[in-house]
Amino acid sequence: MKKIILSLFVLSFINITAQKSHPNLALTKSDVSYIQSKLGGAPLFDKSLEAIKSDIDKVILQPMQVPLPKDPGGGYTHEQHKKNYNIMHKAGILFSLTRDEKYASYIRDMLNEYAEFYPTLGKHPEGKRQTPGRLFWQSLNETVWLLHTIQAYDCIYDWLKPEERKSYEERIFLPMVEFFMTDCIHEFDLIHNHGTWSVAAVGMTGYVLGRDDFVKKALYGSDEKGETGFFAQLDKLFSPDGYYTEGGYYVRYALWPFFIFAEVIKNNQPELGIYKYRNQILEKALNSALQVTYTDGVFMPINDALKEKTWMSPELIFAVNFVYSNYEQDEKLLNIVKLHNEVSITKAGLDAALGLNNAESLPPFKWESVEYTDGPNGDEGGIGIFRYGANDDQEAVLFKYGGHGLSHGQFDKLTFLFYNQGREIIQDYGAARFLNVEQKFGGRYLHENDSFVKQTVGHNTLVVDGKSQFNGKRSESEKHHSNRFCFNADDVNFQYAGAKESNAYDGVEQHRTLVLVNGEKLTRPILVDLLKVESEDTHQYDLPFYYMGHLIHANFKYTPYTTARTLMGSDNGYEHLWKEAEADLNSTSQITWWNGSRFYSITSNTGENSKVYFARIGGTDPEFNLRNEPAVIFRSSGKSKLFASVIEPHGDFNPTLEYSYGSYSSIKNIRVIYSDNNYSVAEIVGKDFNWNLMLSHKNSDKSKKHSVTVNGKKLSWTGPVAIQK
Amino acid sequence: MKKIILSLFVLSFINITAQKSHPNLALTKSDVSYIQSKLGGAPLFDKSLEAIKSDIDKVILQPMQVPLPKDPGGGYTHEQHKKNYNIMHKAGILFSLTRDEKYASYIRDMLNEYAEFYPTLGKHPEGKRQTPGRLFWQSLNETVWLLHTIQAYDCIYDWLKPEERKSYEERIFLPMVEFFMTDCIHEFDLIHNHGTWSVAAVGMTGYVLGRDDFVKKALYGSDEKGETGFFAQLDKLFSPDGYYTEGGYYVRYALWPFFIFAEVIKNNQPELGIYKYRNQILEKALNSALQVTYTDGVFMPINDALKEKTWMSPELIFAVNFVYSNYEQDEKLLNIVKLHNEVSITKAGLDAALGLNNAESLPPFKWESVEYTDGPNGDEGGIGIFRYGANDDQEAVLFKYGGHGLSHGQFDKLTFLFYNQGREIIQDYGAARFLNVEQKFGGRYLHENDSFVKQTVGHNTLVVDGKSQFNGKRSESEKHHSNRFCFNADDVNFQYAGAKESNAYDGVEQHRTLVLVNGEKLTRPILVDLLKVESEDTHQYDLPFYYMGHLIHANFKYTPYTTARTLMGSDNGYEHLWKEAEADLNSTSQITWWNGSRFYSITSNTGENSKVYFARIGGTDPEFNLRNEPAVIFRSSGKSKLFASVIEPHGDFNPTLEYSYGSYSSIKNIRVIYSDNNYSVAEIVGKDFNWNLMLSHKNSDKSKKHSVTVNGKKLSWTGPVAIQK
Repeated sequence: MKKIILSLFVLSFINITAQKSHPNLALTKSDVSYIQSKLGGAPLFDKSLEAIKSDIDKVILQPMQVPLPKDPGGGYTHEQHKKNYNIMHKAGILFSLTRDEKYASYIRDMLNEYAEFYPTLGKHPEGKRQTPGRLFWQSLNETVWLLHTIQAYDCIYDWLKPEERKSYEERIFLPMVEFFMTDCIHEFDLIHNHGTWSVAAVGMTGYVLGRDDFVKKALYGSDEKGETGFFAQLDKLFSPDGYYTEGGYYVRYALWPFFIFAEVIKNNQPELGIYKYRNQILEKALNSALQVTYTDGVFMPINDALKEKTWMSPELIFAVNFVYSNYEQDEKLLNIVKLHNEVSITKAGLDAALGLNNAESLPPFKWESVEYTDGPNGDEGGIGIFRYGANDDQEAVLFKYGGHGLSHGQFDKLTFLFYNQGREIIQDYGAARFLNVEQKFGGRYLHENDSFVKQTVGHNTLVVDGKSQFNGKRSESEKHHSNRFCFNADDVNFQYAGAKESNAYDGVEQHRTLVLVNGEKLTRPILVDLLKVESEDTHQYDLPFYYMGHLIHANFKYTPYTTARTLMGSDNGYEHLWKEAEADLNSTSQITWWNGSRFYSITSNTGENSKVYFARIGGTDPEFNLRNEPAVIFRSSGKSKLFASVIEPHGDFNPTLEYSYGSYSSIKNIRVIYSDNNYSVAEIVGKDFNWNLMLSHKNSDKSKKHSVTVNGKKLSWTGPVAIQK
Repeated sequence: MKKIILSLFVLSFINITAQKSHPNLALTKSDVSYIQSKLGGAPLFDKSLEAIKSDIDKVILQPMQVPLPKDPGGGYTHEQHKKNYNIMHKAGILFSLTRDEKYASYIRDMLNEYAEFYPTLGKHPEGKRQTPGRLFWQSLNETVWLLHTIQAYDCIYDWLKPEERKSYEERIFLPMVEFFMTDCIHEFDLIHNHGTWSVAAVGMTGYVLGRDDFVKKALYGSDEKGETGFFAQLDKLFSPDGYYTEGGYYVRYALWPFFIFAEVIKNNQPELGIYKYRNQILEKALNSALQVTYTDGVFMPINDALKEKTWMSPELIFAVNFVYSNYEQDEKLLNIVKLHNEVSITKAGLDAALGLNNAESLPPFKWESVEYTDGPNGDEGGIGIFRYGANDDQEAVLFKYGGHGLSHGQFDKLTFLFYNQGREIIQDYGAARFLNVEQKFGGRYLHENDSFVKQTVGHNTLVVDGKSQFNGKRSESEKHHSNRFCFNADDVNFQYAGAKESNAYDGVEQHRTLVLVNGEKLTRPILVDLLKVESEDTHQYDLPFYYMGHLIHANFKYTPYTTARTLMGSDNGYEHLWKEAEADLNSTSQITWWNGSRFYSITSNTGENSKVYFARIGGTDPEFNLRNEPAVIFRSSGKSKLFASVIEPHGDFNPTLEYSYGSYSSIKNIRVIYSDNNYSVAEIVGKDFNWNLMLSHKNSDKSKKHSVTVNGKKLSWTGPVAIQK
């Protein structure tokens, strides 16, 4: 039955041939001439081209491998088909630029192999339940295959015999497009990066094959109404600031099809003004992606993110080149081009290489304190980032208060991440996944990614009654978002952000405020964390901090579990935490740890009758999928609470010169000296200073004046957050 | 009573004044002229001098701090007195070179402060039981104080008024020397790096004060018989190869007084030919210290070693300069001089800086496969190191089969360490200590350093019946050493070493052989480990491997302890290991882990009825002093056994380019196909190869021919270890 439908689909369009010149995707006929005229004048471009040539010249001497699909991600056939599309793509570029027929022949021979068996394939034997492919275990990889292969085909289009073109189109491209637009229509019409790969692949195929219907559906959705498709994705996946709702790690991946397809649209339908679309949303998308990295280029790992991924990823090479070339040739990007040490073999890549070659100086990339709103209209919360200090020893804080973040979202509203010294200091776990390692569940996200990493207790945010936000239901979480309250980083020595969350737990209102504040007597700015919780009912509140480093000291007596260990709980992620020690707290507690050449302390006031737990990730993990890293968890019960904490980087640990100083925190206490529905005031007592930090909970206007009377003394300030030193 | 003795000691020599010109220690009057004539001609020297000047010029504007001694290591008074001797030492150098009196005045003022209270000091309030100091909690720091301060005094000697000299000598230097030679005489006469600091400080004081008796005792021991003192230390602490019995980490520290005092002796008694002494043992000492680092410059951490220590330590700056200058100006050292980016302000430092400036090229430092014998006569075992590959991705193996290694020795005979990719792959724990971090037991070695780190089960070596070697008794261990059997690294693709241990466990003979062997089908050479154990009684044998990285897979069924954990045992270090999982083994087992961009597998055959445990460091650790790192422990019971294992680096994990391949080991099996008292043969079965590895247990002659018949087939080979591919 299926075969018949397929045939009809193919036959119905069989006489339509391409109208345009070839190649005309990301590399056009005129690009080829332009590049040929500039060869030898842009060393990085020449080097990048030479690298591809040297690679492909070796590969095409080897026996061709086009195996029948069998293995899941990381397995032989999976990896081979990935290699193949890359080889064909590169060989296509080489043929276009050199006209050496060996490249064209190689692509033809490989397409012959695919044409042989592709029409016979059913669902991949290791297919994922929801989105199986045919060549690959997930259709996503298949769209990537098509996106690359259609470019190779475009490059040799004119060189092929008509009957060869007919064969590939009938036996590969058309059935594959049909597969995407029937069996995988859900994916094609998804507002999600998987959807972008799909529409880009289909749209590019449409441009090559002269199938305007494919292009139209790619741009405006399968029903051509504009609710889905490429433009809808540009509208809905990015906030007006360019922030991508899945976060930096996934926008990295998404940028690839976005930019490749944009470049193709520019070359084929310049009248659509794609690079100007939505106030230059593509430029904003790249800039925000770059800004959500830490100074090592790693994407701050919110939402199922692997910490190995940096802006060195090849997707970013394309994106940086295209933005450089299509907008104002921003020289700030050239430092990244230099780091990449590679450009794309496109006109934009050549422009970037020429820019690098002609640059008199290369200003370093500037990470900024910045807030990005979330949601298509920018009204669904967002993320705030503080930065302090030089690139080689920067403090950075990411505060997360946006939407759920699609399928890779986690139940982590109001969480934060803290960096210093080029290191994670308070971490987000990222993701439980070993990319492409077959032994680890075929390289897919592991079970523990759902059961621990996504759970609220796996984050530096409040857990109410031992349950995850929204009871761990994505569908519920996606209905809501946190609300930004304030963000101000104008003064580098006093940066603050505040956000509220009202839906994660029924009847519990949260207002968290993070402040990065510097002082004369401090080594570095401290991070103050004030988390106000309000409820009419009594709850158990847990607040974890996933500190990174080796515990040096706790200033309270605790009971360590030294000969036998049990779990922190039995569900909602607690089953993955070993309980290492616990203590009763009635006043301010302080723990200090060591990381790199510095010490860090959390001084925390959780009120009377609190508890603190030392925990370690790794319980209920029969396959040792989790990293065994530590946390400290503060627990307090009650109705309304204000968790007040100070995180201080301090001292200097230098084993080479064999000295160590400042291993004790200079923070002596933090006390909540006032708190009601309208205002809170925390007193921070240092060795040589005494500060009051004042918050308004209701009014975020920067110019609004406030005052409260504490112990008979009137405190006055302006704006939502202020400090009195 | 004490005070009276002190006075007599001081008075008895009070009229003797210095005979020589000043300064005349590591910096002499003629050095000063020479240096002055070359200023401006050796950039690194000028920069080093400028750094000192800029540092001291700032310091002397601050209020002087000479507190009464109170704190242990890492505490304020401890660190301040350390700072003070450094300041005085540097100020002395600056005065010598610039004649700017502000430096001399500063030293004088500080000496006045010390002269005020030093004679009134008793034992330090935080004094260590065995070796308390007066200024410091341990006398060791006080000898270091004197070694530096006497140099400062020497620099301003001629500038001081006679009554000032009298005051400092009577109130500081003479009583301090007396303290070292009475209360601390045990330390002074110790064959140990602490002894070297003591004799160097006393000897240098002797040269400055013209006290030949001090010099003589420093050189030949307090009884002047030559059984102790500096020459005896040179004789007994180094093997004829220059290997220092405490290992690389401690020789780093010891080299400082050795070289400073050697330079002083050369300048004062050139007739002693100190740099030529014992076939240039000082040069050999430095070279062996450099060779026992990995490619990141970290000293391979055997014997209570902190992993933070590299050859960048300031001690090495002196040693490298002095060896460069006093021997053949070996240009191989210049690359390290460049790395140091600093030279000592001595004639040797100037020579090194000039050498660097004049060098046309800087050959990279060459780490070599090398064996060092241990013991004064080179007949107390040793260490063997294999290296393979370029400096940026080197495989290195250290195999330890020497003596105990003095007070910092561990019960780890026949252990090994394995490195690759600039990383530890099979680690030695190093030491449980947070250098100078006061909260961690005053920065001293922690309790767990004795109870876990020194214990046999804390190492990659055999544990018999759950007890440590020599029952954990240092006195017993010091009576014995392992014996080297063979070492051959002539063929980089087939390097081997064998050693035997007969005394660690009563009635148990061990013969361990490590082989680093390459093959055409391998990514990198594999490390084969054959450990033959012989006993007439039945024992429990445990063999741990402290692998570094994340466990990817085990090819056997195991029982994981996922909801509650207990300890591996109750003593001998087992109490510090959590039992994470266990399994019964009857055949070859394989575990794979991931580290960096590669995978590693141990394929191990421990015979029938074996067990394997996954363990993690961190049990019985109430203060969280230990790093929570993993181990796999193979257990087997019986009389005689041959533990056969292959460790293979394989594959490539590249998250940037998002591929991963070769995550499965290419080793399919290792089998012992023959083993008796004379010979063993192991068969290694790879995916595409089948090798036999043959050992002689009795004859280590490289040219001796051997043969055995296995399954009717005769295997013949030459030498103690051979492979048949």
